[in-house]
Amino acid sequence: MYTEQDFKATIREIPDFPKEGILFYDITTLLKNPSAYNALINEMANSLIGLDVDVVVGPEARGFVVGSPVAYALNAGFVLARKPGKLPSEVERLSYGLEYGSDTLEIHRDAIKPGMRVAIADDLLATGGTALATAKLFESMGAEVVGLRFAIELTDLNGVEKLKDYDVRSVIKY
Amino acid sequence: MYTEQDFKATIREIPDFPKEGILFYDITTLLKNPSAYNALINEMANSLIGLDVDVVVGPEARGFVVGSPVAYALNAGFVLARKPGKLPSEVERLSYGLEYGSDTLEIHRDAIKPGMRVAIADDLLATGGTALATAKLFESMGAEVVGLRFAIELTDLNGVEKLKDYDVRSVIKY
Repeated sequence: MYTEQDFKATIREIPDFPKEGILFYDITTLLKNPSAYNALINEMANSLIGLDVDVVVGPEARGFVVGSPVAYALNAGFVLARKPGKLPSEVERLSYGLEYGSDTLEIHRDAIKPGMRVAIADDLLATGGTALATAKLFESMGAEVVGLRFAIELTDLNGVEKLKDYDVRSVIKY
Repeated sequence: MYTEQDFKATIREIPDFPKEGILFYDITTLLKNPSAYNALINEMANSLIGLDVDVVVGPEARGFVVGSPVAYALNAGFVLARKPGKLPSEVERLSYGLEYGSDTLEIHRDAIKPGMRVAIADDLLATGGTALATAKLFESMGAEVVGLRFAIELTDLNGVEKLKDYDVRSVIKY
């Protein structure tokens, strides 16, 4: 069993990345640790059991690394939310504000059918901007967003307030 | 059980992407299909059982989507090979030629310890340039590359010849 403290012991803290004044929690040191990675994915996936998740969506790129094994563990499908121009077929697009800057994600229009039950998984819950925009996009396509799961949550930024209409959980809180 | 034909039935073929004359095999339609995605990851992971894999490496970005669940299924760690400037700590870098163009990947210097047993997983084996460069980089850091696994192989491009010194397998061949 991994406690929150066990997880934190595997995460590297990097000051002033990607810019001055930001303390970056580097999850790559957790991911390369077999037992920590396995425990993280299990905790995220187990909290979604019983919600009948059809597909998990993970935003590019670190969202792929937590979202796709969660999808595999749940025997669900995985939908890629990618940077503009990467997906080869027709897309729906969303633009949104970030903690620092803004971004755009695209998903394939045919990835979602009305009534599909979608879970969103990402490495980091900061302001909640990415997650809220992703949830709204999927809802606009007729899907039901049944849960949002994060590896790390920066509690000071109060992303859970922005996401208060959803079932939100994070494994590691700072 | 998924046969190769079953997998192919889930893959979308897109002519002239990313440029004219290229027939692109769009794996996103496989990934969103729960049973196909599960079967793909199981087949890739099962073929690595017994090779004592410490970490799986997947090149950004589609390599994340096959490599990270393979790592999870094997109870191994996952190492990210990323585009330049994305990793926050000290990196080793590699540049290499592609079927169309060239590219650079970085990995964290501390991701690999001498003697580590590494498997490389990616969505596509084309010319083998990305995979060979990745393998050589890990070897230069003292790791042993015990297997390379691909979802799709374009057999006409003969990547297996370039990778003939390695244990290489692909699930779906065109």
